[in-house]
Amino acid sequence: MSLDSTILAALRAAGTGSVSGAELAQRLGVSRAAIWARIEELRALGYDIAASPHDGYRLVSAPDVLHADDLLARLGKTRVIGRNLHVFRETASTNDSVEKLARDGVREGVVVFAEAQTRGRGRLGRRWVSPPGKGLWFSVLLRPALRPDEVTRLTILAANALVRTLRTHTGLHPEVKWPNDVLLRGRKVAGILTELSAEVDRVQHVVLGIGVDVNLAPHDFPADLRKTATSLRSECGRTCDRAALAVALLRELDRDYERLAAGEFEAIATEWEAACTTLGRDVQIRVGDRRLTGRAEALDPDGALLVRTEHGRLERVTGGDLTLLK
Amino acid sequence: MSLDSTILAALRAAGTGSVSGAELAQRLGVSRAAIWARIEELRALGYDIAASPHDGYRLVSAPDVLHADDLLARLGKTRVIGRNLHVFRETASTNDSVEKLARDGVREGVVVFAEAQTRGRGRLGRRWVSPPGKGLWFSVLLRPALRPDEVTRLTILAANALVRTLRTHTGLHPEVKWPNDVLLRGRKVAGILTELSAEVDRVQHVVLGIGVDVNLAPHDFPADLRKTATSLRSECGRTCDRAALAVALLRELDRDYERLAAGEFEAIATEWEAACTTLGRDVQIRVGDRRLTGRAEALDPDGALLVRTEHGRLERVTGGDLTLLK
Repeated sequence: MSLDSTILAALRAAGTGSVSGAELAQRLGVSRAAIWARIEELRALGYDIAASPHDGYRLVSAPDVLHADDLLARLGKTRVIGRNLHVFRETASTNDSVEKLARDGVREGVVVFAEAQTRGRGRLGRRWVSPPGKGLWFSVLLRPALRPDEVTRLTILAANALVRTLRTHTGLHPEVKWPNDVLLRGRKVAGILTELSAEVDRVQHVVLGIGVDVNLAPHDFPADLRKTATSLRSECGRTCDRAALAVALLRELDRDYERLAAGEFEAIATEWEAACTTLGRDVQIRVGDRRLTGRAEALDPDGALLVRTEHGRLERVTGGDLTLLK
Repeated sequence: MSLDSTILAALRAAGTGSVSGAELAQRLGVSRAAIWARIEELRALGYDIAASPHDGYRLVSAPDVLHADDLLARLGKTRVIGRNLHVFRETASTNDSVEKLARDGVREGVVVFAEAQTRGRGRLGRRWVSPPGKGLWFSVLLRPALRPDEVTRLTILAANALVRTLRTHTGLHPEVKWPNDVLLRGRKVAGILTELSAEVDRVQHVVLGIGVDVNLAPHDFPADLRKTATSLRSECGRTCDRAALAVALLRELDRDYERLAAGEFEAIATEWEAACTTLGRDVQIRVGDRRLTGRAEALDPDGALLVRTEHGRLERVTGGDLTLLK
């Protein structure tokens, strides 16, 4: 961990108590002056840190910014996801940023957050609105032992982690809309963009992109999305702590990624199905130029949707644009 | 076409005849001095171009180099593959070079050749030996309307185009070893590396990499490959014209890519099967830590190999390391 991570971890561990500069200096093997310099830097970033000659330093409040050292300090040790982490103030797309890291040979688990994306993407090359400081836009580099046709499992894993985390944080009931959206009260609040690079029979790496509309106000969305999109703030009526949410989400992702590696995908899929409002519903799916109407009956083991058409046939759908009917 | 392309195309069209500088200048809308300057440049590249005051210019011989303008001139108009073309003197891997073009939004069909690769790759991250000027190492950018699980079709298409081209050029009988090798007399002479970038249900682009061992001598191969690898030169007993081979191969690829787009994959697969020595043979396949032994019976519509195991079960194999037994 960096100096900042260790200092912030110590201040957080002390809760409403204080930590002496001497203790921090000793623990980190640096001078008290060096600690002081770091504290000043953290204050410049917006951390309100009280200092008293007797008691030492105390964390009064943290700013609503994503700070890599602080996220790492709060996250603690994870198995894979989040063992390294970067925060960009602005990037074109966090998926593109992670893709570059992947091609440079960076090992799996690295996470890139951006406070804003200038060219955020959703599925099928669509725009993902990502105004500065309002959401969580991040991507995770994975190098799973999966075949290309099994990669849908990672979308399901991510949706499941999102549902659990949002449920805990909001007390609401998030729903999954197949294949990659998470809804609150029927409106989209988060999405997943899973991109892979592969040989024909072997995945080289996967970039798992996640966008959560945390503190966006209705006017932060473009007019055409205002009826279908929402944010945690709109649904909960209060501003949410983005960093806390990020940390919780990374922990859930790491946990399920471990379960996946241990061969427990089926258990993950079962949880996912319980949250999936698409199953049992009449749907219309547009795949390219084709429209398919029917009842969404089940998932197959690879995460494809099985749809019973009007003519009684069961069709397997791996993607497309889904509309819930009625 | 560039000036050089047009000049070379005119010289080639004249065969053993000549083309006057005045005619070239008029056709290209430049001065005769400009034509002269280009001829000098081409001579510097190794083109032997005779000039006579009465008859004009005549192409005596072309050097054994890959020259983008010359390749384009010889290729003429193609539908997709080769409508743009680059030659690098050296690159790490042509697949990586094309991958970068893909991410910059370059349209499909562009081809990158390298005279040498410093980090040429085969399947499963293996090294591909690519000494300068001895082979054809190139990659093609494709943006096909395929799902990720259909991309094997492009490997089959490429293997098929390789077999046809090598058969015509050598008079020998190239064989396909599933999934991606082309053999002459049982030894590997060419290979295909198909890499894809995709969303879960949609291919973004495919980089089709092809390596052909054209004029390598036995000592150009590392010792561990000398028994299993060969070159066209070793098999034919003469040096082959790399540029002519490249042009023929690109034409075949373009033709079959058009057939694929027209829904004629099945016909391509049938041709492929006729050249595939793997079918009907006893094989051992290593997939990760697992070994599978049995008889290779057929291909399924996606290009996977169906293997009848010792226990009578039919297993579907999408990749792995295949050894022909006996």
